[in-house]
Amino acid sequence: MVGISDIITKVAREPGNSEIWTMQKIRAIAIHGGAGTIDRAQMSPEREMEYRNALQQALNEGCMILDKGGSSLDAVCASVVFMEENPLFNAGRGSVFNHEGKHEMDASVMRGDSLEAGAVAGICGPRNPVLLAREVMENSGHVLLCGKGAEQFARTMGLEFMPEEWFSTEFRKKQLEEALKEDDFRLDHGGGKKFGTVGAVALDTMGNLAAATSTGGMTNKKFGRLGDSPIIGSGNYADNRTCAVSCTGSGEYFIRAVAAFRLASLMEYGEKPLSEAADYVVNKKLAEMGGDGGLVAVDSKGNIAMPFNTPGMYRACRKPNGEIEIRIWKD
Amino acid sequence: MVGISDIITKVAREPGNSEIWTMQKIRAIAIHGGAGTIDRAQMSPEREMEYRNALQQALNEGCMILDKGGSSLDAVCASVVFMEENPLFNAGRGSVFNHEGKHEMDASVMRGDSLEAGAVAGICGPRNPVLLAREVMENSGHVLLCGKGAEQFARTMGLEFMPEEWFSTEFRKKQLEEALKEDDFRLDHGGGKKFGTVGAVALDTMGNLAAATSTGGMTNKKFGRLGDSPIIGSGNYADNRTCAVSCTGSGEYFIRAVAAFRLASLMEYGEKPLSEAADYVVNKKLAEMGGDGGLVAVDSKGNIAMPFNTPGMYRACRKPNGEIEIRIWKD
Repeated sequence: MVGISDIITKVAREPGNSEIWTMQKIRAIAIHGGAGTIDRAQMSPEREMEYRNALQQALNEGCMILDKGGSSLDAVCASVVFMEENPLFNAGRGSVFNHEGKHEMDASVMRGDSLEAGAVAGICGPRNPVLLAREVMENSGHVLLCGKGAEQFARTMGLEFMPEEWFSTEFRKKQLEEALKEDDFRLDHGGGKKFGTVGAVALDTMGNLAAATSTGGMTNKKFGRLGDSPIIGSGNYADNRTCAVSCTGSGEYFIRAVAAFRLASLMEYGEKPLSEAADYVVNKKLAEMGGDGGLVAVDSKGNIAMPFNTPGMYRACRKPNGEIEIRIWKD
Repeated sequence: MVGISDIITKVAREPGNSEIWTMQKIRAIAIHGGAGTIDRAQMSPEREMEYRNALQQALNEGCMILDKGGSSLDAVCASVVFMEENPLFNAGRGSVFNHEGKHEMDASVMRGDSLEAGAVAGICGPRNPVLLAREVMENSGHVLLCGKGAEQFARTMGLEFMPEEWFSTEFRKKQLEEALKEDDFRLDHGGGKKFGTVGAVALDTMGNLAAATSTGGMTNKKFGRLGDSPIIGSGNYADNRTCAVSCTGSGEYFIRAVAAFRLASLMEYGEKPLSEAADYVVNKKLAEMGGDGGLVAVDSKGNIAMPFNTPGMYRACRKPNGEIEIRIWKD
């Protein structure tokens, strides 16, 4: 638990430097595990508890890092890694199958202090796609690497690989079988309206924001389709001037709306507060275009927004005052 | 040539409809063929004339469509197709070679009336990548398709394919050989500072904006690297509310800056005019981050901006008053 003393901005003296500097002790984090028509009637109390526990643990991974004075980048990566490892979520282990019965994962990270970013798309092999995205940001000289090339880069950097079966679950196999039966020729499989993406945004005690997003994509997707998760500005964005954002939803609409950066722009150029900007992007802009989904966002003051225009979104946050929220539906 | 009578907004009566509607006869188009350290001393007068002629012809392809009352989408595609077919430009035929001696092309299109968009990344085969991007927009239900999957979609739609050799030129082979010699291990080949991308933006007589961008990427690129050209919001964007934008430059910076949409946001949320917004993105935001390049943009009034922060950018435009500009360097 965070005490009130932690919230007060403290003034300290940097060793060997006469300048006075401010250590901002405020920290905040928000995570999501996907949005969609999460049917309350069909979810057993046991299943609901599994999701709530997983969200709590994923949140906790990030909180532990922030509480030790760690970076928001480390925190969002830790929360996302936890969800990638948990087969309940469509990211990493537990990713959906594409039309060919394979997995194609995407992930991205961005840091708000330097606007550095990294992303990977259409990969299968590296155990934690979000860590490969971070490696791209830190060591490739590039921002976005795709497919086999991205996997080759992961091997060059010595990242852990897992066999394809490790990512597969029976539940996802059944989802593919159903999608194939229903929908042999249609390209757009948005009908199910379940958008499995995970993400995290955080503000650390140094005042830095970061965002991370990871997904297994769309069941039965074809033709090397990419959604918004690996697209900086659409599914993921962070800038210390404004906010950090991670999105989940019908990726095509989030790309066309440049959703994550639109939120930041509304703050930077439209001078809107976070809550108003986030609400506008999700419930006005995207809703008018026909885009379903939601997002989590945190601004440089630690304000949190978690709007969505679908019946549910798996989400959790810890506010600067220590208050924790773990929710699935509107109420 | 456009006469003054064409510029005056005319009022006509729609057949079978008593409502009065306005037919805006204003039209404008701007194109680019890449930015970078285009060395004036090293360019022979013959070579310079070749580029100027090619820019003039590419511009003309778009103008002819606009003058017949055609759509801005058709116009930008026609101009980009011309540059893809011309080996002078790094897009389509004449694309650079990646590290493995292959071509990997990217392209994107967006229409400002509906915010529909299409893009392809890492493809080789379809004769005109920009036409495949348009096909993705119009017939895939998706926005971004990658690699083999995108090529498979192109075959499904019956697009024309060319053998790999058709895209190759001796000049680009030499560039790869030099890059391989100089730079065996470095990942970042931005040193040359020659950013081969082509693009076009246009306003049609119906008041619709559109943008198209196409590139052969970076010489000697590795690891399935993608730049900003296929990224909606970064290398390409169009919205009738504001403007159409096509970028060329060090793609990683354009992605991190969400350059194309940042320009539109500055207009939409910051209420800046096109010229000021375009100048800010290129000469302030990107320049401060270390990003080299430029862009062409047209707004819904037909204003044109073509800023760049490199020594040169191949560019051309026709303004609403009919004035044509074809330029390579600052003067």
